[in-house]
Amino acid sequence: MPLTILFSARDDDWHEYRDLLPDALARAGLEARVTRQAEDPATVDYIVYAPSGGMSDFAPFTGAKAVLSLWAGVEKIVGNPTLTQPLMRMVDPVGLTEGMVEWVTGHVLRHHLGMDAHILAAPGSWDQTCPPLARDRRVCVLGLGVLGAACAKALASLNFRVSGWSRGQRTVPGVTCHSGPDGLAAALDGAEMVVLLLPQTPQTDGLMNTARLAALPRGAVILNPGRGPLIDDAALLAALDSGQIGHATLDVFRTEPLPADHPFWSHPHVTVTPHVASTTRPTTAAPCLADSIARLETGAPVDGLVDRARGY
Amino acid sequence: MPLTILFSARDDDWHEYRDLLPDALARAGLEARVTRQAEDPATVDYIVYAPSGGMSDFAPFTGAKAVLSLWAGVEKIVGNPTLTQPLMRMVDPVGLTEGMVEWVTGHVLRHHLGMDAHILAAPGSWDQTCPPLARDRRVCVLGLGVLGAACAKALASLNFRVSGWSRGQRTVPGVTCHSGPDGLAAALDGAEMVVLLLPQTPQTDGLMNTARLAALPRGAVILNPGRGPLIDDAALLAALDSGQIGHATLDVFRTEPLPADHPFWSHPHVTVTPHVASTTRPTTAAPCLADSIARLETGAPVDGLVDRARGY
Repeated sequence: MPLTILFSARDDDWHEYRDLLPDALARAGLEARVTRQAEDPATVDYIVYAPSGGMSDFAPFTGAKAVLSLWAGVEKIVGNPTLTQPLMRMVDPVGLTEGMVEWVTGHVLRHHLGMDAHILAAPGSWDQTCPPLARDRRVCVLGLGVLGAACAKALASLNFRVSGWSRGQRTVPGVTCHSGPDGLAAALDGAEMVVLLLPQTPQTDGLMNTARLAALPRGAVILNPGRGPLIDDAALLAALDSGQIGHATLDVFRTEPLPADHPFWSHPHVTVTPHVASTTRPTTAAPCLADSIARLETGAPVDGLVDRARGY
Repeated sequence: MPLTILFSARDDDWHEYRDLLPDALARAGLEARVTRQAEDPATVDYIVYAPSGGMSDFAPFTGAKAVLSLWAGVEKIVGNPTLTQPLMRMVDPVGLTEGMVEWVTGHVLRHHLGMDAHILAAPGSWDQTCPPLARDRRVCVLGLGVLGAACAKALASLNFRVSGWSRGQRTVPGVTCHSGPDGLAAALDGAEMVVLLLPQTPQTDGLMNTARLAALPRGAVILNPGRGPLIDDAALLAALDSGQIGHATLDVFRTEPLPADHPFWSHPHVTVTPHVASTTRPTTAAPCLADSIARLETGAPVDGLVDRARGY
C-alpha cells in the first residue's frame, strides 16, 4: 500500500516539487503517491505544507502521521488549533548554507570589484582603475555559527583577509577569530566590509550603531543577510549620508516586506535584496522531506520536530 | 654602494610604488635607493618603466643594467632605438591569476544570483524568486591554461557544475574536462554561463559565432575576460536582441578602448568592464620587480627577458 502524501502549497511550489519530491521519495526507498487533491482526507499519510497554499483546517486528516512545513519558520501555523498532528519545520542544512555562502561571496566580490560602477557606466567610460587584490582587502564576519563560519571560510579561500567574531571562541581555518565583548572592536578594526550573521538576541539588537559604524574605515560596506535588528537603521542612514559608510546591501529588515516608503529603497548607496540570501531550495529540500518521512515511517529520530510550547 | 633605481612612470604609479618598491627591495636583501629624478643618468643601475610616464630616450642611461617594464605588454617600447639595455616585461603570476579568479568568480555569482535586478530595483519590489543553488547551475570555461584552470577550480569549489575545454586534454579537480575539436560541443552543452579564457589564435577567432551561441540554452550568459576576437560581435548582438543570449559581460574588445558609439555600450544586456579583469597590481608586482633585480645582480636566470626579434 503506497503512502499518500498531500502537497498543500502554491501552484509555483507544486511546479517545482511535482517531479523532485516523487523522485526523492523513491530514492529514499518509499513507495508513495504525491497528490494535490485527496479524495478522502482520512487516507492521507503525510501533508507537505506551506501557509501560502491557503489550507487552514487540518481536522479532516485524521490519519495523517505528520505535517511537514516547506518553510523553516512555522510561526504562521504553530498556533492553529486544528493542527493536532506532529509538525516538522524545514531543516535543510545543505541548501540554506550553500545559498548563504553564494549570496555573501557574490556580494562581497561585487563590492570588492566595484561592479556597480560598470553595471551603471555611461557609454565610453574607460576608467581602468583596478581594485586591490582580495589578499589586500579586509572583511569581517560577525557571527561564526554554521552560516557565518561557512561564509568566512569561503571568503578566506578567495584570499580575502578575514576576521571573525562570535560570543564564544571559535576556530575557522584561514580566519582570525575573536570573541567576547572585548574581541568585537579587534574584529572590526580596519574592516572594509562587514558581514552580519549574528543571531537576534537582546545583546545583538542595534549592534551596528553610530559608534561602531564610526570606528570602521571611511567608505566601509555593510552586508546584512542575518537579522534586521542587528542594525540601528537611523545610525546607518546617517553614516551613509555622511559617506562614513560607502554602501549597505541588506537582505533582512526590522519590517518585512520592507515598506515601499522606507528610505533604504531610495537611498543611492543601499541595495535591498528581498530576504533571499538563504532560503529553502526544492532540489535540496525534496531529499530532506523524503528523508524525514522515511525516518518517521521507521521510528528513527528526526530533525525539526516542533515543540508547540516553545513555538519552534 | 646602494643601487640607484629610477622610477619612470605616472604620478599615480609612483604614489602606489613609492613605499612598496623600497620595502620589496629591502626584503629581497638589496641595498637600493628608488628615485624619480636621476641627478646623473649614468649612475642609474635599473629603470622601472611605463610608457605612460613620458620618457622615451634611454641613451643617457649608459650604466643601466636593465629596463623593467611595469606592464606585461611591451609593444610600445620594444621598437625604441635608444633602448639598448636588456628589457624585462612584467611577469606577475600571482597577481594576474588572482585578479582573474576574482573577476570571473564575482561576475559568475552576479549573474547566478540575478544581482542586477536588485541593484536596479524600483522601491517596493519584493520578488522573492530565488536562483537555483550553484550545484544546479552549469558553467563552462573555455581555455584551461593557468588562468582558465584557476577560474574553473574556484567555480567548482563554490559547487558550480563546471565543464572545461582546451585544445589538449587537461585535468582540473572538480571540473569535467573536454578537449579537441570534438569536445567543444560537449563542453558547451547545457552551459548557462560560458567564460572565455582562450588565447587569441587564427583557430579561436570568432569562436563564439551564431551557431555556437544558438546551441546554448536560451538566456545563457557570456563572460569574456580573455580576448576580444574570441567573439563574433555581430552574432552576439543578434543573439542578445533575440533573447537567445541573456547577457554578456565583456572585459576585452576587438578595439580598445571600446569606442563610445559601439553598440555594446548602450545594449541593455551588455556590461562593459574596461579591460580590468587581470592587471598588474602594485602589491604583487613590487616583489616581482625586486626579485628580478636581485636575480640580475647575481646572474641568476630571470623570467620575462624580452626577445627583440620576436617582439615580446
